[in-house]
Amino acid sequence: MQTRIEVGILGATGMVGQHFIKFLQGHPWFDLKWLGASDRSAGKKYRDAMTWHLAGGTPDTVADRAVEESKPGNAPRLLFSAMDASVATEIEQAFAQAGHIVVSNSKNHRMDRDVPLLVPEINPEHLKLVPGQQRARGWKGQIVTNPNCSTIALTMGLAPLKPFGIAKVIATTMQAISGAGYPGVASMDIVGNVIPFIGGEEEKMQQETQKILGEFRGDHIEPLPAKVSAHCNRVAVVDGHTVTVSVELSGKPAMAELHEAFEAFAGIPQQRKLPSAPPRPVIPMHEGNRPQPRKDAERERGMAAFVGRLRPCPVLDYKFVVLAHNTIRGAAGAAVLNAELMHSEGMLD
Amino acid sequence: MQTRIEVGILGATGMVGQHFIKFLQGHPWFDLKWLGASDRSAGKKYRDAMTWHLAGGTPDTVADRAVEESKPGNAPRLLFSAMDASVATEIEQAFAQAGHIVVSNSKNHRMDRDVPLLVPEINPEHLKLVPGQQRARGWKGQIVTNPNCSTIALTMGLAPLKPFGIAKVIATTMQAISGAGYPGVASMDIVGNVIPFIGGEEEKMQQETQKILGEFRGDHIEPLPAKVSAHCNRVAVVDGHTVTVSVELSGKPAMAELHEAFEAFAGIPQQRKLPSAPPRPVIPMHEGNRPQPRKDAERERGMAAFVGRLRPCPVLDYKFVVLAHNTIRGAAGAAVLNAELMHSEGMLD
Amino acid sequence: MQTRIEVGILGATGMVGQHFIKFLQGHPWFDLKWLGASDRSAGKKYRDAMTWHLAGGTPDTVADRAVEESKPGNAPRLLFSAMDASVATEIEQAFAQAGHIVVSNSKNHRMDRDVPLLVPEINPEHLKLVPGQQRARGWKGQIVTNPNCSTIALTMGLAPLKPFGIAKVIATTMQAISGAGYPGVASMDIVGNVIPFIGGEEEKMQQETQKILGEFRGDHIEPLPAKVSAHCNRVAVVDGHTVTVSVELSGKPAMAELHEAFEAFAGIPQQRKLPSAPPRPVIPMHEGNRPQPRKDAERERGMAAFVGRLRPCPVLDYKFVVLAHNTIRGAAGAAVLNAELMHSEGMLD
Amino acid sequence: MQTRIEVGILGATGMVGQHFIKFLQGHPWFDLKWLGASDRSAGKKYRDAMTWHLAGGTPDTVADRAVEESKPGNAPRLLFSAMDASVATEIEQAFAQAGHIVVSNSKNHRMDRDVPLLVPEINPEHLKLVPGQQRARGWKGQIVTNPNCSTIALTMGLAPLKPFGIAKVIATTMQAISGAGYPGVASMDIVGNVIPFIGGEEEKMQQETQKILGEFRGDHIEPLPAKVSAHCNRVAVVDGHTVTVSVELSGKPAMAELHEAFEAFAGIPQQRKLPSAPPRPVIPMHEGNRPQPRKDAERERGMAAFVGRLRPCPVLDYKFVVLAHNTIRGAAGAAVLNAELMHSEGMLD
Repeated sequence: MQTRIEVGILGATGMVGQHFIKFLQGHPWFDLKWLGASDRSAGKKYRDAMTWHLAGGTPDTVADRAVEESKPGNAPRLLFSAMDASVATEIEQAFAQAGHIVVSNSKNHRMDRDVPLLVPEINPEHLKLVPGQQRARGWKGQIVTNPNCSTIALTMGLAPLKPFGIAKVIATTMQAISGAGYPGVASMDIVGNVIPFIGGEEEKMQQETQKILGEFRGDHIEPLPAKVSAHCNRVAVVDGHTVTVSVELSGKPAMAELHEAFEAFAGIPQQRKLPSAPPRPVIPMHEGNRPQPRKDAERERGMAAFVGRLRPCPVLDYKFVVLAHNTIRGAAGAAVLNAELMHSEGMLD
Repeated sequence: MQTRIEVGILGATGMVGQHFIKFLQGHPWFDLKWLGASDRSAGKKYRDAMTWHLAGGTPDTVADRAVEESKPGNAPRLLFSAMDASVATEIEQAFAQAGHIVVSNSKNHRMDRDVPLLVPEINPEHLKLVPGQQRARGWKGQIVTNPNCSTIALTMGLAPLKPFGIAKVIATTMQAISGAGYPGVASMDIVGNVIPFIGGEEEKMQQETQKILGEFRGDHIEPLPAKVSAHCNRVAVVDGHTVTVSVELSGKPAMAELHEAFEAFAGIPQQRKLPSAPPRPVIPMHEGNRPQPRKDAERERGMAAFVGRLRPCPVLDYKFVVLAHNTIRGAAGAAVLNAELMHSEGMLD
Repeated sequence: MQTRIEVGILGATGMVGQHFIKFLQGHPWFDLKWLGASDRSAGKKYRDAMTWHLAGGTPDTVADRAVEESKPGNAPRLLFSAMDASVATEIEQAFAQAGHIVVSNSKNHRMDRDVPLLVPEINPEHLKLVPGQQRARGWKGQIVTNPNCSTIALTMGLAPLKPFGIAKVIATTMQAISGAGYPGVASMDIVGNVIPFIGGEEEKMQQETQKILGEFRGDHIEPLPAKVSAHCNRVAVVDGHTVTVSVELSGKPAMAELHEAFEAFAGIPQQRKLPSAPPRPVIPMHEGNRPQPRKDAERERGMAAFVGRLRPCPVLDYKFVVLAHNTIRGAAGAAVLNAELMHSEGMLD
Repeated sequence: MQTRIEVGILGATGMVGQHFIKFLQGHPWFDLKWLGASDRSAGKKYRDAMTWHLAGGTPDTVADRAVEESKPGNAPRLLFSAMDASVATEIEQAFAQAGHIVVSNSKNHRMDRDVPLLVPEINPEHLKLVPGQQRARGWKGQIVTNPNCSTIALTMGLAPLKPFGIAKVIATTMQAISGAGYPGVASMDIVGNVIPFIGGEEEKMQQETQKILGEFRGDHIEPLPAKVSAHCNRVAVVDGHTVTVSVELSGKPAMAELHEAFEAFAGIPQQRKLPSAPPRPVIPMHEGNRPQPRKDAERERGMAAFVGRLRPCPVLDYKFVVLAHNTIRGAAGAAVLNAELMHSEGMLD
């Protein structure tokens, strides 16, 4: 792992692109060398092509770098995609066609039959879809995706319970404004308010959860046969999606078994000590009123999920709260961890 | 109804007491004549006995009135109770014993077998518990209660669906800070944050909902045999509790039937045009992202519940959002409407 | 005053237009009959031409009214202008040219030499500019303006002190997000934050204050020869601009004289009991930590300014805090009060 | 500097005490070995003696440490004081009497004639008060203080301008809720609101600023003969006090000279590379709408002040905005930097 791997970002000027830049600062394996954006930005210095929206300022390492057109050519082989959904389909495919490894945060290909929707601690074996994807599409490159920011919180909370047989899930989210990008949610709509709707979010949570927790079956993923229902809400929180979950488990475990499962949960990223992997991906909190987004989401560099308040549910079997940082574990950090897993599998060689 | 009825407030200096004072300003039937508080406040002018926390200032009609001790004696027969739970049991009972009609917002007697937990549009017949209450306790007076502020939102949303057979309910609340009184929630705990816990709230929502929607059976209320599960959260909203609801209905109605039920819902308060009754107690909203607390809770003088986003639930049968103003419909306004119903029944004569 | 006067709104679909519609509901003199907007909206029903952003819903009185093109023709003589600054100059002039009385909230003509920048309690005599305006421009109609929303708070606080000789003013604003319209301020920029800049606002406050407090001199207003310095900031408040003020007074009055001046301040709108005039335009608050926007701005129907914390300033002479509702007294209500003053002067006959 | 210095915290269980604990984690010189609190907490484990209020959880390094009584005895020589003002006077003096070096964040001794009110970049020579303090009070130990959290922001902004002759200053603060401790500001008072008053804060800012920028005169500090006026406000920000400043400078410098002064400002902490010293203590920001508390306060580990929007003031000479992190640079970090300066002066030997 001595040689650093050159990487680029597709959609580098948007808010998710900025999160990628911030998260990649000082990364031990990946060396950010290329910033792709729309034609309109191409040729400008990065600092002139965007307004930086994150806390802290534009990192010096990218401020004076020239922004490139989002076309295959001189881009590095490994690209993180932060492209807007309106353009991601064609551009990501063009890069994969041209031999690039596209590790994407965009929603466009997540539900494609031959594209992994990857959470390294949960379904690393879904990467086995890639050879079939390359064959079927005639690509030398590939596309690998990470889930929607609310799905990641839910699936991190559910994954430890998978051995007990997840049958039914009802989840209500309280999602941070950073999940909507910039300018995103108008302040007149959210200060002192709740918006009980986020376009397309409930469908994404329901479908993606079934795929992520599903089984690799040669050329596709067999979705988890669980019923999943999501209620998605926006609240006046900056970072961190909080999700209340009621779950029915066919194995009817005792509550102590759930506690143990949360405590013991870990995966390949932890075994291999991947650079962005948190020591524990799911952290049970024992205070009665946690996790809380402003106080907990940034812990563990934003890469862990926090669960709390496990208790019986009078309707399904158990209920609990789970929290994850939506722009780190739910976006940029998720994709980088995906790439780290791929590298540890030799897929970047 | 020409003679105005003198009323008093038990616990007039606290925040709920202030809401009662504000709500009773200009009431056509009830004339606020008596303000009871703790011994420590008794004898002071109201303005000197408390700090006013509501928008607007202390109403002139009460500012210079002397605060009385919370002991039966010169108090009016009809009393609204805003007493703190730590003292409400004994004091409310003492007043009922002494012949007063105590219309209480406190939680202490809500679940008593012989005390109505009243929502006038939903269960007016529960008032029939009162004669038995008086007999059993040897009281000339009586105690009638209204639900917890989060329960009222949920039950207003569920009541129109009762004819379809409510079997299972999972609800997640996003509750306003005003529900915690003053000083209540510390700003360091809620600005930019969510607190996924409110002490005792989930149990109250679960039990009270079953009682409110239950049936009068001579000397008690047979609870609705539905399973109810609540997840209670605090968010940075000033007024208005928002609740996401998934519900299983044994009658398996079509969605159009639910829409009709919400549209058609009304009760005795509407038929009798009680002064605080909203023309429609449950108002369906058709915009895709409503109701919202800051924009909707104060409509209809804070006395209606607003429902929106009715859609199928992949786990139970349907899901929707319901909103109610927690300090008006969920507290002071609820108790005043209870007293109006009681007056229209001749119970205050 | 028995016959109601038909009025229209230029720019009726924007946020300020919505405030005009809301404020004019039930107005005793003015009957809203005409809604003008851009070509793109013309012909649509009002409900289909915009998204309603204010608390409560679209008033029934306008929901089904057809939106008109913003061109003279069938519009009523009296028009309130809520036009965006990018188009207000030409359109307002075209209507004035065509004989309309344009009572405008737009900034475009405020500083024109022959246009009144009117605050009815402060400078009603500035209306005498109108005949000269009509002569010079060859108009049968006219344009009369109200100040910027932050200027109105400052000038309401300063006007009672004008007799003492206002020499220097340093003001810092904490302005509500509603002042920026919709979508206006991105939530990512203001939740848990302060933005210490509002484009053009400081210049407006400085210049408009001098004009409003200035003297009518036949064909122009001689600005008040006071030095005024503004620091303008945005904070996470929905409605109500709070302003801290330090002021130097050449007359060197005692503090008691200032208290008396604030207490006694009133003007023609109060004498004539104009429908939108608050009984007292400036209300001194005696609690040590008031006024506060969420608790006070909506009092007096949003039409009064509230002052508090008057105390000596170690640098200039005195300092205090002043608050006004930015979208009512600072926008729609200001223009309507202007029109009421004009009507009471016979200018609408 | 190889041997680490043992340190303790007086008032370790309160919110400022928690900030000290957090800030001292991993400190290269200071080894936190002792946690003092009230009698009531003494003997308990730290984790049981308090509720942790900061983001992240209770550091493992202190969680199981026993809390000590706040009495001299087995405490380390160097103590950071986070004591509540109600008890700090006697306790801090008792420790100083007993030979301890008390580096205090409490307000109690700040304005004592013989106590340094230290900002290491601004007035390191004020430490020369210590020998006289020890003589006059008969102490082997000493008390050294840091300023109030709003004063530090103002003085960091003013210090670079001192060579130009600071004559008059008018400052308005927009202060974070964390400055009020816990539970501190009630959420009902600050969500969607501004509180234009903070008890005692304006007096502190005015007096402390004059002392900090004043001159050492053998046995006392001659205050800067500048007039200073403060308007203090609380806003719904978690961390970071923003201050608007108008300043009159007797030297009448050109604006370019001010820009240069801000750019060039540094002091002994930077020369000596003290561990907590930011590379640049005052960082000019060139974007037109910065600094902003949520986006900038945590930069430079919370130890720098950020200035922006330098421009002419129509009343005094110039105006600008300055921001500093109130619980780091304005409290715990300030005291630790004071102790670092003292160590670099040999005062801890």
